[in-house]
Amino acid sequence: MTNKRVIIYSGGMDSFTLLNLYLSRGIEVQALSFDYGQKHKKELRFAKNVCEDLKVPHKIIDLSSINQLFGKSALTSDIDVPNGHYTDSSMRITIVPNRNMILLALAMGYAISINFNTVGYAAHSGDSTVYPDCRPLFVDRLRYLAEVIDYNRIYIDAPFLHYSKAEILSKGIELKLDYSKTWSCYKGGAKACGRCGTCVEGLEAVAMNEVRDPINYEEDVYGD
Amino acid sequence: MTNKRVIIYSGGMDSFTLLNLYLSRGIEVQALSFDYGQKHKKELRFAKNVCEDLKVPHKIIDLSSINQLFGKSALTSDIDVPNGHYTDSSMRITIVPNRNMILLALAMGYAISINFNTVGYAAHSGDSTVYPDCRPLFVDRLRYLAEVIDYNRIYIDAPFLHYSKAEILSKGIELKLDYSKTWSCYKGGAKACGRCGTCVEGLEAVAMNEVRDPINYEEDVYGD
Repeated sequence: MTNKRVIIYSGGMDSFTLLNLYLSRGIEVQALSFDYGQKHKKELRFAKNVCEDLKVPHKIIDLSSINQLFGKSALTSDIDVPNGHYTDSSMRITIVPNRNMILLALAMGYAISINFNTVGYAAHSGDSTVYPDCRPLFVDRLRYLAEVIDYNRIYIDAPFLHYSKAEILSKGIELKLDYSKTWSCYKGGAKACGRCGTCVEGLEAVAMNEVRDPINYEEDVYGD
Repeated sequence: MTNKRVIIYSGGMDSFTLLNLYLSRGIEVQALSFDYGQKHKKELRFAKNVCEDLKVPHKIIDLSSINQLFGKSALTSDIDVPNGHYTDSSMRITIVPNRNMILLALAMGYAISINFNTVGYAAHSGDSTVYPDCRPLFVDRLRYLAEVIDYNRIYIDAPFLHYSKAEILSKGIELKLDYSKTWSCYKGGAKACGRCGTCVEGLEAVAMNEVRDPINYEEDVYGD
């Protein structure tokens, strides 16, 4: 790996932490975000603002046409995003089939075209309970493939792969990050819903770190 | 593998042969074509017509926005498509970085979403002299990854991987295929140029099979 990396930057808490971690280490970063027809398109605006603030080159790639291939995910269709925990089987409805391989393939192609040799993404252990393409096994095999997609080897950096959300947040606290600059909620409403898989996991992380939650939730999730 | 396959169908000679090979074996096929900003967009019209004739469900996915990631390929930019043989080093300028992994990732996602478990693509040995993502090594590792991208295994079928273009054509002749229904030339002009990598290879295949060439070329490539 070199100190030049393309990062897949959704605008959410995990990739925001990874982006800042890279910058804190003096790594040169170019960020890619993708519009794949997700309901929580709002995350893209947050991604854009953060990259502007941090002076990170950033592209938002319109992949909304691929939505016609994957009509059945709650993230991209009129099916309701379920409430609950990532470990609930109901959460499978939020899968966009093979989404990460698609986004990683694009990021790897971009890295090749700008002569970077590393792609970073912020998959973490919580994701892997529901998304097959966030599992360590997937990343291992992707790395093996990435060695041969071009004449030169491409590296996949996924430093949070074995982290819980609470550990990612703990890393962010260490870096003094302001998470009000992120958007994670799958529902993409005016405020975060506090009930979908990603909100529930974020709330657990906040509780475990015993910090003040910078995210505004629709409901009084703390019962104050 | 089952008898339900998603095929990546460019509209060119190789994937046309594969599509017809599948149909001749009673395999249920759904075809995907991609507009990734290629100059020879004409191939997409040929693909559409063939699928209509053969009553194969077909989608053309607009990926032209990803072109902003890969500005430097002669296939998608204002750089001239070189004349010559695939084995010439000049041919590298026609590489769209990681193109096949991107298209395969999308096709694999589509297969998952329609409950097919196999993706077919028509990479052949001629491609692999210039395109890293047509090499048997790439396909081996892709297959290994495809086992774990979803809860169920996905298969990659690439039966022409060790075929020359001449062997593909020979298979097509056996199937009595009409290659005037295909478009392969990278330049996308009114007639095939007869001089780019894909035309040169097609002409060699025709010569080796000693058949009448159904493709109309710009120049009198046979010196008649």
